[in-house]
Amino acid sequence: MTKELQNQQIILAKRPSGMPAAEHFSFQDAPIANPEDGQVLIQTLYISVDPYMRGRMNDEKSYVTPFKLNEPINGRIVGKVLQSESDQLQVGDNVVGMLDWKKYNVTSASNVRKIEETGAPLPAYLSVLGINGLTAYFGLLDIGQPQKEETVVVSGAAGAVGMIVGQIAKLKGTRVVGIAGTDAKTDFLKNELGFDDTINYKTTDDISKAIAASCPNGVDVYFDNVGGPISDGVMNHLNDFARIPLCGAISSYNRTDGDLGTRIQPKLIKSRSMIKGFIVGDYSDRFGEGMRDLSTWLAEGKLNYRENIIEGFENVPDAFLGLFKGDNLGKQLVKVAEE
Amino acid sequence: MTKELQNQQIILAKRPSGMPAAEHFSFQDAPIANPEDGQVLIQTLYISVDPYMRGRMNDEKSYVTPFKLNEPINGRIVGKVLQSESDQLQVGDNVVGMLDWKKYNVTSASNVRKIEETGAPLPAYLSVLGINGLTAYFGLLDIGQPQKEETVVVSGAAGAVGMIVGQIAKLKGTRVVGIAGTDAKTDFLKNELGFDDTINYKTTDDISKAIAASCPNGVDVYFDNVGGPISDGVMNHLNDFARIPLCGAISSYNRTDGDLGTRIQPKLIKSRSMIKGFIVGDYSDRFGEGMRDLSTWLAEGKLNYRENIIEGFENVPDAFLGLFKGDNLGKQLVKVAEE
Repeated sequence: MTKELQNQQIILAKRPSGMPAAEHFSFQDAPIANPEDGQVLIQTLYISVDPYMRGRMNDEKSYVTPFKLNEPINGRIVGKVLQSESDQLQVGDNVVGMLDWKKYNVTSASNVRKIEETGAPLPAYLSVLGINGLTAYFGLLDIGQPQKEETVVVSGAAGAVGMIVGQIAKLKGTRVVGIAGTDAKTDFLKNELGFDDTINYKTTDDISKAIAASCPNGVDVYFDNVGGPISDGVMNHLNDFARIPLCGAISSYNRTDGDLGTRIQPKLIKSRSMIKGFIVGDYSDRFGEGMRDLSTWLAEGKLNYRENIIEGFENVPDAFLGLFKGDNLGKQLVKVAEE
Repeated sequence: MTKELQNQQIILAKRPSGMPAAEHFSFQDAPIANPEDGQVLIQTLYISVDPYMRGRMNDEKSYVTPFKLNEPINGRIVGKVLQSESDQLQVGDNVVGMLDWKKYNVTSASNVRKIEETGAPLPAYLSVLGINGLTAYFGLLDIGQPQKEETVVVSGAAGAVGMIVGQIAKLKGTRVVGIAGTDAKTDFLKNELGFDDTINYKTTDDISKAIAASCPNGVDVYFDNVGGPISDGVMNHLNDFARIPLCGAISSYNRTDGDLGTRIQPKLIKSRSMIKGFIVGDYSDRFGEGMRDLSTWLAEGKLNYRENIIEGFENVPDAFLGLFKGDNLGKQLVKVAEE
């Protein structure tokens, strides 16, 4: 079978300094090996593009290894098994896992997880029922520990993680304020997801004042997806014993200057607050619990989500680059082939 | 009895902007009321001056209420009961508590705690067996959670809290690196307290490089007393899941500019580290446990400490102002009267 297929891959052609661009990626034809014992051949259906991948384009120590120059980019993919040399997976199974940006991957069956039929559409396994949903779930509930009637602020609120954070926080009985960058996004958060208030940071002169107005009782939990000046503003309004799950700092990822801001230590001391960086993989032994709750809420209609699906393997780099323009509402995916 | 005594007090005469100076304090004669039922008359023996008091000189919300203008400064004092209208305390008892900067205080017996005879000298109850020792104990053990063979870095290491932190960390089997500002201090830390390595930040061009050299295995716990550029340097070397008890930010207390530094959020995410502000009062329900361990270690000769005791009530403001010059090795106290 592998002989009939035309494979293509996207490699890291250059390392960016600052904002990444099309020139940092390159398309190549690629061979397909015959699956060996224990391996499967997987056709890529959906590719997830995520802000954290920007960090992997740098050649520096982090929680994930850097992408290698002239080798394929690697990320979350939903695919279908076309050929199986493993008794763990059957032809026709849908799977999710960390795979190369290729139209076809040959990999060990244990590298991917079979998607069981739950009625949820396949792309959901790259968003609300995938890493994004689990990130929201564990960051908010384990680190943020929102209590009834507290105030929860979410930055990057219309992003794939932020919109789930806000909805879980509402399910826990809190007041939720979302920060996003367009009126379309803030309208969506208020009208479709039930956020109590929103701030459009692009049309707001003073984030700190806007937070004061939106959070008359101060901030108890700040789920931070963005860092930078937005977070500087929120930090002025922490209540005593506030908790700050630190999920991302997209405003810093492409900066080549010093990323200077007012030091937050004095504010953390005054309010005895806690801030903690995390990645979802830190909770891998509890994914079952998270998936159970997220699936239940989704099935009960308590979780709304939004995906922005572009078609075509050739558009994967553009979809990734779009993440840093602040345009995307919800999860950005690329559909590569029909299910 | 109160009629024979000449009382004096030190009031907040002006609020400082930036570095405090002698002009912000004023000495006044003060009356002494007759103790009422439940009250005691206490003669001040030792006054503790502490960096956190700088914050109380500002008129802004914090974890402690601001000092009032033209009213006495209030802080930790060890004194002796001269007259008692309470059955909780006897004449001659030594006590410790938050009292006004006066030679004599009349206060409710429940405002102070009786010092039991343990063999430890009285000033110790304002340092190693007082708030400083408890701050070191709970900040390091509850937030820092040092594990055997980890690396613990302490800033303000020769201060009243820092020197206890380092010694407890050694008792827990860690490698301890102290940062201080004179060679006399770093010599003391290495030679008398058993720190594994030290950094004199005043003679070091690049704190980040110095930390890399002193901490070949990275930093697992950073007990932060100072904030500012020193902390910026340490933050470059956090190991995965590092813990940062945030005790003070003395470098920021007198700043009137923006206190700008490189934002720490990206570094916390990369290492999935946690930073938490605290004050010792957050642990008041566990003080008994802390005092028990500290007293035991002290009695067993496992805790060394150093006090710098100036004599004379008239020198209290100078002793306080000296805290911000970085000269003091160990706990700064003022002896006001003979025991």
